[in-house]
Amino acid sequence: MNQDYIKPDAWSIVEEGFDKERIKSSESLFSIGNGAMGQRANFEENYSGGTFQGSYIAGVYYPDKTRVGWWKNGYPEYFAKVLNAPNWIGIEVVINGKQLDLNTCTSVQDFRRELNMKEGWYKRSFSAEMPSGEQISVVATRFLSLDLDELGAIKYEVTAINQDIEVTFRPYLDSGITNEDSNWDDKFWNTTAVSMDKDQGFIEAHTMKTEFATCTYMQTMVAYNGKAVISNSGNKTENLVSLAYDQQVSKGSSISLTKFGGYTVSRNHGKSELVATAKSILDKAMQIGFDGLLEKQKDAWAKIWKMSDITIAGDVKAQQGIRFNIFQLNQTYLGKDSRLNIGPKGFTGEKYGGSTYWDTEAYCLPFYMATKNQEVAWSLLEYRYHHLEKAIENAEKLGFSNGAALYPMVTMNGEECHNEWEITFEEIHRNGAIAFAIFNYHRYTGDYSYIPKMGLEVLIGIARFWHQRVNYSVDKEQYVMLGVTGPNEYENNVNNNWYTNYLAKWCIDYALEQLEVVKNHYPEDYLRIMTKTQLEDPETSDWAKVAGSMYFPFSDKHGVYLQQDGFLDKEMIKVPDLDKSERPINQKWSWDRILRSPYIKQADVLQGFYFFEDHFSNEALAKHFDFYEPFTVHESSLSPCVHSIQAAKLGRMEQAYTFYLRTSRLDLDDYNKEVEEGLHITSMAGTWMSIVEGFGGMRVAEDMLNFSPQIPTQWNSYTFRVNFRNQIVTITVTEETSSFEISEGEPLTIKVNGKNVVLVPGKTIEA
Amino acid sequence: MNQDYIKPDAWSIVEEGFDKERIKSSESLFSIGNGAMGQRANFEENYSGGTFQGSYIAGVYYPDKTRVGWWKNGYPEYFAKVLNAPNWIGIEVVINGKQLDLNTCTSVQDFRRELNMKEGWYKRSFSAEMPSGEQISVVATRFLSLDLDELGAIKYEVTAINQDIEVTFRPYLDSGITNEDSNWDDKFWNTTAVSMDKDQGFIEAHTMKTEFATCTYMQTMVAYNGKAVISNSGNKTENLVSLAYDQQVSKGSSISLTKFGGYTVSRNHGKSELVATAKSILDKAMQIGFDGLLEKQKDAWAKIWKMSDITIAGDVKAQQGIRFNIFQLNQTYLGKDSRLNIGPKGFTGEKYGGSTYWDTEAYCLPFYMATKNQEVAWSLLEYRYHHLEKAIENAEKLGFSNGAALYPMVTMNGEECHNEWEITFEEIHRNGAIAFAIFNYHRYTGDYSYIPKMGLEVLIGIARFWHQRVNYSVDKEQYVMLGVTGPNEYENNVNNNWYTNYLAKWCIDYALEQLEVVKNHYPEDYLRIMTKTQLEDPETSDWAKVAGSMYFPFSDKHGVYLQQDGFLDKEMIKVPDLDKSERPINQKWSWDRILRSPYIKQADVLQGFYFFEDHFSNEALAKHFDFYEPFTVHESSLSPCVHSIQAAKLGRMEQAYTFYLRTSRLDLDDYNKEVEEGLHITSMAGTWMSIVEGFGGMRVAEDMLNFSPQIPTQWNSYTFRVNFRNQIVTITVTEETSSFEISEGEPLTIKVNGKNVVLVPGKTIEA
Repeated sequence: MNQDYIKPDAWSIVEEGFDKERIKSSESLFSIGNGAMGQRANFEENYSGGTFQGSYIAGVYYPDKTRVGWWKNGYPEYFAKVLNAPNWIGIEVVINGKQLDLNTCTSVQDFRRELNMKEGWYKRSFSAEMPSGEQISVVATRFLSLDLDELGAIKYEVTAINQDIEVTFRPYLDSGITNEDSNWDDKFWNTTAVSMDKDQGFIEAHTMKTEFATCTYMQTMVAYNGKAVISNSGNKTENLVSLAYDQQVSKGSSISLTKFGGYTVSRNHGKSELVATAKSILDKAMQIGFDGLLEKQKDAWAKIWKMSDITIAGDVKAQQGIRFNIFQLNQTYLGKDSRLNIGPKGFTGEKYGGSTYWDTEAYCLPFYMATKNQEVAWSLLEYRYHHLEKAIENAEKLGFSNGAALYPMVTMNGEECHNEWEITFEEIHRNGAIAFAIFNYHRYTGDYSYIPKMGLEVLIGIARFWHQRVNYSVDKEQYVMLGVTGPNEYENNVNNNWYTNYLAKWCIDYALEQLEVVKNHYPEDYLRIMTKTQLEDPETSDWAKVAGSMYFPFSDKHGVYLQQDGFLDKEMIKVPDLDKSERPINQKWSWDRILRSPYIKQADVLQGFYFFEDHFSNEALAKHFDFYEPFTVHESSLSPCVHSIQAAKLGRMEQAYTFYLRTSRLDLDDYNKEVEEGLHITSMAGTWMSIVEGFGGMRVAEDMLNFSPQIPTQWNSYTFRVNFRNQIVTITVTEETSSFEISEGEPLTIKVNGKNVVLVPGKTIEA
Repeated sequence: MNQDYIKPDAWSIVEEGFDKERIKSSESLFSIGNGAMGQRANFEENYSGGTFQGSYIAGVYYPDKTRVGWWKNGYPEYFAKVLNAPNWIGIEVVINGKQLDLNTCTSVQDFRRELNMKEGWYKRSFSAEMPSGEQISVVATRFLSLDLDELGAIKYEVTAINQDIEVTFRPYLDSGITNEDSNWDDKFWNTTAVSMDKDQGFIEAHTMKTEFATCTYMQTMVAYNGKAVISNSGNKTENLVSLAYDQQVSKGSSISLTKFGGYTVSRNHGKSELVATAKSILDKAMQIGFDGLLEKQKDAWAKIWKMSDITIAGDVKAQQGIRFNIFQLNQTYLGKDSRLNIGPKGFTGEKYGGSTYWDTEAYCLPFYMATKNQEVAWSLLEYRYHHLEKAIENAEKLGFSNGAALYPMVTMNGEECHNEWEITFEEIHRNGAIAFAIFNYHRYTGDYSYIPKMGLEVLIGIARFWHQRVNYSVDKEQYVMLGVTGPNEYENNVNNNWYTNYLAKWCIDYALEQLEVVKNHYPEDYLRIMTKTQLEDPETSDWAKVAGSMYFPFSDKHGVYLQQDGFLDKEMIKVPDLDKSERPINQKWSWDRILRSPYIKQADVLQGFYFFEDHFSNEALAKHFDFYEPFTVHESSLSPCVHSIQAAKLGRMEQAYTFYLRTSRLDLDDYNKEVEEGLHITSMAGTWMSIVEGFGGMRVAEDMLNFSPQIPTQWNSYTFRVNFRNQIVTITVTEETSSFEISEGEPLTIKVNGKNVVLVPGKTIEA
C-alpha cells in the first residue's frame, strides 16, 4: 500500500493537509463526472506546481497517428485518444494585485478536499497566506449536473482573514490546452470563435480530423455583502476569454463567485446551434440557481444509490472502497446514450484513450444490469450492434469474408484503433465476450426482444468469424485455432488457447440455437435477417461441424484443460516461489521472458469457468483453480475479481476476501503507484461482482435469482440491492443469517442456497 | 519481371533513354561505393523531378528515437539510421543565365548511363535543349577512389551544340540535407563551419547525438580550350559553400569541370585535423590528376576481379547479373576496417538503417573468405569480438547473467537498435550464426589462431546464453526452448524451433570442444580466458547436460524434423495451390494470417541442413527439402540461394537454376518493385554461393577444397576463382568437363567428385 492519506469515511473521500506530491493523485481520486463529461480535480485558480490537467467530453476523441518499427497489413492508421477539452473551470484569483497560487503561498493551512459520493459534489477548502502577507480562506464547491448533463457549477468563496483586501476574480475559458499523451505533439483543437456577452463567455473550437465542434461556455456572478458585483472588463485572445470582477473585501468578510459552465457539442446539436444551446442552458441554470441545482444533484444521486448501494458494517475502509467503485462507475456511464461506452479510465485520465475494450461486456455489464433499468444494459448491447458493419469491415481487413465480424480490441467508433499485431489481430476472444453479453442480458433480464431485433445479426457475424478462423488439423483430426492471444496477455500467438476455443464453440452453438428460436417465434425478423445476411444451410451445417469437433488441449496427468498447447513445457515455478524482487514481472522482465514463463496476467482458463460455470462441476473448478491460480500474478486489475468469486464458490472465504481486497481499494490506496494517471474504472465493476456474485453468491438460473450468501469474518454485515426485472431486491447478510426483501410489486420467488423463497413487498424474509 | 531497361552487357550496367519514372531506380542501380563511402547515382546538376538523394559515409549513423504502442522492458531507445551525408557532388550548371534541369528541358536525347564494373566508374551523357533553345551535350564521369578512399572525382563536360553560350558552373557543397527516413523529422546534422580557399570549399558538420565530426570538401578546376578558367566569385551561407566559373563557350566547343570531393571523418582523424586532412588529400589528388586517379581505379578493380570474377559463357544477362553482385559487394565492404560491416542495402539507400544483421555471418562471410585474403574474413569476425561486451550487456537487459552474450539483431556499434519484441528478443538464432562463422573461418582458412585470441570468448558467451535460455520440460523430460522466432520470420514466438534448438546444441558442443583444444594447445590463452570469464567446471558440465538432452520436434509420420512444435496443425496447402492473387503474402495478408499459415519466408529447417550438411544424409536432405520447399514463399531475398545449393546437391539442376535466377538479377530486373529504395547487397552473396557452392559444388572438408561441378543447361561454360589459403584456384566448368588450375605456389591437392586431384602452377587439370 502506497498511500493512506485518504481519510476513512463511509460516504466521502476526504483528504486533509496540503502536499504538493499528492496533487496529481488527488486530481484523479477527486475526479467528477456525469456520464456526458468529466474532469480531474484540477484547481480553479492558477497553480504553478505539478498538475495533470484534464477535462473530457464523452465521445470526443482524436485519431492520433502512430508509427511502429515495421508496419503490418491491416493495422489501423491511428490510435484514438481521449482529448483534454477546453478548460471551463478556470478562475484567476488576484489578491491585492497578486495571483493566488498555492504553490507559492507562504503557508497553506486547513487544506481539505471532500468528494461527497452520496450527493455528488466536490469541495475544496483552505486558508493561505500570500507571499505579501494577506491571509485568506477559500471554499470552492463544484459538481457536474446529472440533471442538465452539459452543465457544471462552481461556487468559489474567498474570505479576508487578517486585513482588508482587494479581490479580483478573472473567470475564464481556455482552448489553448494540450494532451499529456500525444505522439507527434500535433495540435488537437482548432479555435474558430471567441466571444463574450455581459457575464457570459463562449469559445467555439473543433477537434482536428474528427471535426467535433464544441462550444465551451460560462456565465459568472459575483456577490459581496448580498450585492452583485458588476464585471468591469473582459478580455479575448485567440484561445481565451475572461471576465474580471474587482471588489474591496473587508477583513472578516467574504466574496463569492458562482460560475456555470460546460460544453455543447455537435454530437448532440447542430453545429450552428452550439452557442444558442449553451445560452439556453445558462438561462435554465440561472433560473434554478446554484443551490437549486445542488438540490437536484442530491436527488439524482439518491435515486442512483437507492438501486445500487452496498453497505458494509464493521469495516469503514471497505465501505468507503465499494462506494467509491459504485460512484465512479456511475460518474462514467449512465446508459443514456447508446453511442457511448465505458473507457477503462473513464473521465479521470488519458490512458487507454478513453476507448471501449472487452471490459465492458465481460466486467461492466453485470453491474449495470443489476443496478439500473434494463434500458441501460440494452444501450450497451446496442452500441455493438451499431458497430456491426465496422466489425465486418475490420474482419475483411484481416482477410475474412462473407459477413464475418471481428469486433475491435480498442475502439471509439467501431473501427479498430490499436496497432500491436499480437493484440489487435490475435486477441480475438473479445468477439466471444460480446456474444456472451447477449446471452447474459437475456438470462438476467428475461427480455428476449434484443435477439430478434439486433442480437442475432451480431451472433451470425461472430459465428462466421469463428468458423473461418479455425482450421482442420489433419494431425489432430479436429478443428484447431492457431495464433491467438487469450485474456492472459502474458502469452502471445499461442495455439489452441482453451478459453478462446471454448468461446468459439459456444458462440457457434448459441448462434445456431438462437437461429432456431427466432425462426420459430419471430418469423418476420427471421426473414429480414436471412435476407440481410444471406445465411443458408450449407453454411450453418459447416458451423455445426466446427463446433462439434473442436480441439481442447487437456492434460491427463493433471486432469486439467491446458491454457494452450505446450503449456506444460514451461518451467513451472509457482508465484510464491518467485523472488519478490522479480515482481511485478511486467516491470522487471523483458517481454520474451514473460512469454516463456508460466505466469498468468489475469484469469484465462478460469475466465471460461466463470462465464460457463454451469458446464463444469465444482470438483473441476477446484482442480483448475488449484492448478492455475498459483501461476497467476494478477497484474491486470481485472484478475482478482474472478478469483474472488470462484474462491467464494469453493467455500474458501479467506482467500476470496484476500482477492477482494486487491481491487476494492486499488485506486484509493494506489497499490500500483499510478493513480495519478487516472482511475481503473472498469475493474471497479469487478469489485462489485466480488461482493454480489462472490460473497452474495448471486446467480440467475432457471429464470430466477439465486443466492448462496457468505460473509467475510472481517465484516459484521453487508447489504446490497439489485434491480431484478424491475423489482429492487435488498439482501442483507450477517454472520448468522441472510435476509431478503422487495419494496413493491408482485411476489418474487428466488432461490437461497438452492431452496425457493417467496418475497412479498414490505416483508423481510430470513433464509 | 518489372523492368528490362538495363541493356545486357558483360561488364557494364547500361541505361539508354531518359525516363523520369526510372530516375529513382537508376539512382540505386548505378550507385557507386568504395567500402568507406558510397552514393546513389544522383545528378550533379539540379534536378527538379522526383529523386532520392543519398550519399553515405561508412559507420556514420544517427540513433533516431522510436515510439511504439506499448513499450516493452529491454527495448533499445533508438533505431540507428544510416545518414544521408552532406552533398559534395553538386554542380549548378547555368546556360545563358538559366539552370540546366533535365526535368524542364524541351528535349533530352541520347541519355545514357554506364556503370563500368570492370574499371569502377560511372558515366552519364546526354544532349538537351534548354527551354530557351540552347542545345548542349553533357558527359559526366564519376568514381569513388579505391586508392584514396576518402576521395571522389567528377569530370563534367559541356559542349555547345547549336550556338555560342555562356556557361556558368557553380560547384557546391551542401549540408542542409535530410533523410527520407526520419521518425520525428529531427535535424540530424549540425553545421559548425563553412569556409573557402581559392578553388576549395569546406563544410564542417557533425551528426547530432552521435557527434561524428565530418569535413565535406571539394576542389574544382575548369578548363576551356586548354586554358584554366578562374573562379570569379564564391558564396557561403549557413549550410552551403559554392564557387562560380563563367565562360563564353563557342558553338562546337566544350568546357570541362573537374571536381574532387569527399569526406574526412572523426572516426579516422582527430576532430581538429579534418580540414587539414582534406587539404592534404586534395593536394594528392591534384598531383595525380583525374586521369591518373582513374588509371589507379582501373588497376585496383583489376586486382579485385583477378581474385573474384565469375564468367559465364552463353548467357550475357547471367554474366551481367553475377558481376553486378560481385561488384556491389566489393563496393560495400573491403575489409580494411574491422569497425565496419555490411549493411543489407550497402551505400545504396536508407532502408535497414545500414546496420549489421546476421546476413553477414550466414551469407556474406563465405564470399569474402573465398575472394579476398583471409584478413578480410578475420576483420568480420573481429567486429563481433569487439562487440562482445555489448552483447553481454544486451543479454543482461533481457535478464541473463554470468557473462551470457546475446548479439544484437540489428546494430551499428554493438548495441541492439531494433525494437520489435518478436525479432529483437526472440530471433536469437543470430547468436548461432556468429558462432558458426568462427567454425567456418577455421574450416576454410585453416587458421586456428582467431579462436584462442578472440573466438573462444565469444563462444563461451554464446554457450552461456543458450544454456540459460533453455529450460527443462518435466513433461518432455528434455530441454526445450520456448518463445523464439527462427530464420523463417513468418512464425513468431514459437516453441522449439528446430533450427534454433539445433544451433544451440551445436554451439555448446563446439564451445566445449574448443575449450579442450585451447586448453591443450594454447595454455597461456586458456589461462587468460578462464581468468577473464570465470568459467569453471560445474558450469561446463551443465552445458553438456543441455546439449546432450535437447528436444527436437520430429514427425514420425512424415519422417522429418518439424520446423517447430505444432507445425502439423496448420492448414497444409502448398504454395503452388495458393491463388496467385494472394501473393506475395507479406503484401496481401495481415500478420496473424501469415503466422498461422504454413508458409515459410526463407529457409529455416533447410538453413540448418545447409550449415550442418555433414550431419545429415542426402536422403534426409531430399526428404526435408521435399517437405518444406513446397511451403516456402521465398519472400526474403536470402531464401533462394540455400535452396539452389541444396537442389544442386540433390542433382536437381533445373530447380537449382530456377532458384538461382530468383536472386541473380533481383535488383537489375527489380522483381520486387522496390529497387528505388536501394539494392539487396547481402543477398548478392547468396547468388555467389549458388554458383560456387551450388553449381560448382565447392566445399571444404578434411582440410581440402572439394568440388562436384555441374552446369545449368542454359550455359555453355562458367569459370570462377577462389582464394584458398593464399592460392588462387580457377575452376572452369563446361557441359563436358571441369578444369582446375592454380597460378603459382606449392602444389595443391583438391578433391573433385570425391577423388584427389593435385594442382601444380600453370597447368590446367581436367577432372
